Amino acid sequence: MFGADDVNELADGCTLLGSGGGGDPYIFQLVLQELLTTRGAVRVIGVDQVAPDAQVVNVGFVGAPIVLTEKLFCEDEVALALHGMRQRLGRRIDAVMAAEMAGANGLSAFIAASLLGVPVVDADGMGRAFPRSDQISYAILGRSASPTLVSNEHGDVVCLETRDNSRMEHLVRALSIAAGSKCFSVDYPLFGRDVPTYAIVGTVSLAKRLGHAIQHARRSHRQPLAALQAALHESGAAVVRQLGEGKVTSCWNETRDGFGFGTVTLEAAPTGEPMTLRYQNEFLVACQGDRVLATTPDIISCMDTETLAIITSDAVRYGQRVKVLAIQAPPLLRTPAALRVVGPRAFGFDLDYVPIGATA
Amino acid sequence: MFGADDVNELADGCTLLGSGGGGDPYIFQLVLQELLTTRGAVRVIGVDQVAPDAQVVNVGFVGAPIVLTEKLFCEDEVALALHGMRQRLGRRIDAVMAAEMAGANGLSAFIAASLLGVPVVDADGMGRAFPRSDQISYAILGRSASPTLVSNEHGDVVCLETRDNSRMEHLVRALSIAAGSKCFSVDYPLFGRDVPTYAIVGTVSLAKRLGHAIQHARRSHRQPLAALQAALHESGAAVVRQLGEGKVTSCWNETRDGFGFGTVTLEAAPTGEPMTLRYQNEFLVACQGDRVLATTPDIISCMDTETLAIITSDAVRYGQRVKVLAIQAPPLLRTPAALRVVGPRAFGFDLDYVPIGATA
Repeated sequence: MFGADDVNELADGCTLLGSGGGGDPYIFQLVLQELLTTRGAVRVIGVDQVAPDAQVVNVGFVGAPIVLTEKLFCEDEVALALHGMRQRLGRRIDAVMAAEMAGANGLSAFIAASLLGVPVVDADGMGRAFPRSDQISYAILGRSASPTLVSNEHGDVVCLETRDNSRMEHLVRALSIAAGSKCFSVDYPLFGRDVPTYAIVGTVSLAKRLGHAIQHARRSHRQPLAALQAALHESGAAVVRQLGEGKVTSCWNETRDGFGFGTVTLEAAPTGEPMTLRYQNEFLVACQGDRVLATTPDIISCMDTETLAIITSDAVRYGQRVKVLAIQAPPLLRTPAALRVVGPRAFGFDLDYVPIGATA
Repeated sequence: MFGADDVNELADGCTLLGSGGGGDPYIFQLVLQELLTTRGAVRVIGVDQVAPDAQVVNVGFVGAPIVLTEKLFCEDEVALALHGMRQRLGRRIDAVMAAEMAGANGLSAFIAASLLGVPVVDADGMGRAFPRSDQISYAILGRSASPTLVSNEHGDVVCLETRDNSRMEHLVRALSIAAGSKCFSVDYPLFGRDVPTYAIVGTVSLAKRLGHAIQHARRSHRQPLAALQAALHESGAAVVRQLGEGKVTSCWNETRDGFGFGTVTLEAAPTGEPMTLRYQNEFLVACQGDRVLATTPDIISCMDTETLAIITSDAVRYGQRVKVLAIQAPPLLRTPAALRVVGPRAFGFDLDYVPIGATA
């Protein structure tokens, strides 16, 4: 069971997995704590505990993450799209998954589950966050996003069916922009039997363990890297590395086309050589001079050196002291088929994927 | 019954009522003639012939009219949204109405009716064309556009429900732009018993009579004004006036935000004083010097002096000799409540409505 006391650990873990994106979880932490206190705990179930014919749906906000911090969020918006999906499918929803178990969107799955009174499945579609809704394991493996239900803060609810998932992303993005670069989406409906094949498994537990490691390091004033590596180890062979550490010397960001774009530069210790992080919602590429230190789909996150707070891409500010961490992406995202969708070239970088293991 | 032989008259009448918008009907004429030839005639029924519990829906393309000429049109696009609406309502559609009995959109109601095998109701929502989907009698009188079904040439189909009709226009416009500034919309579902209250009645017959008058004038090399006045007289007290006649000396147009915007200037006979027509999809204001000759909601249309062809706003070209005609809008559009929605100020003009009767 997952109760109000678990929220902060989950939030830290999700933000680390967010690669700078997925949305700042703060407001979502407050809403979720309130929901779990008044409505009781939410059950997290393993993919082997989902009944084969259970109806599972994916949930999450689509837009520019900074908008999630600018606009107060109301759970009615979440309820509206869930209700629309239930009507469209003509049956109850038995469990929810996060489209991305990352940032605020990791918590939004628990908010949806609490509202519906159903469990959260210990899996997601990205194992991190990505800017586009079709950069997801289900799409990479050939599932359809249709029907997708989208709702917004104005009380509008929209049901979309498209010929392919890139059309779906195109139309959902247009609706997100039309609602101020933020909308809530319920998509990629699948049956319990399909979850182990199409989803990235164990990511809720992973986020919780990573958050636990961060909070423990914070309380005991220790460096978190070894504890994070141990937490990752439990979930498979994923590697975490510290790419560097230093002071932020410049930030540029822009919200356009429904995304947040930006560049962060830091003066990296000990040489002072500048390190550059580029993002589209999520940090996608880390470079130092000519060297590419890490690229998408590996996860690149910034952690405040003092507080060990994970800082989302749009919250990085001049003068912050940060560690830049990289975590190996789940194997499913590192296949050639996946790299076409989530590798650096999918974001317009003239780069091949540089696995962080390779630069060790 | 309405057969292939009636299409050209209807097209001329609809284009005249279009106030320069509603889309150039040419491709729609060809598609409709083919449909009526192969599938048989479509029945046009008076509002008093619609069963009280009959399900009626409104249809039409939403976007920038010029795109309807640039892209070939396929009736599958129309069928998709109709099918979606049938599914959403959970019942058959018994009759269709044109959202605007104007330009190509007047014909699109017949295409929809032919595909469904149902009649067209002798009424519409605008009695002319307007750029926005919420500039319609149903919205003015407080009906909801929800649910609205939208389809596009990519085979996408979207069902929208919004809190108000201006939100609906906002989201449908975003979807239209995302599909290249053109989508097909089925909206404002209503029952037969509601049609006489909420629709503008008799506009199919009116378009047909106006088209007949134009074609007769064309064949007999007569001036059409008297015949148009007679045709209008049959439908009530609407006035038609010739605002002027002259050579087009400049045209400016731009497609943006899902609409076509532009200005046409002509050297008006006999003095040569410039006359200016400004449009957003539809001609909205006609001026000569400081004098406002006509404004929305009255209908402003250009007719080629030689061929008597009605020229849509985006098809006006340098050097054309045109008559500028103005037709009084239906009474429902001239009420204070309607003028807030379709009067000149609704389009950003710092002008009150100048009824064409008043400037006679």
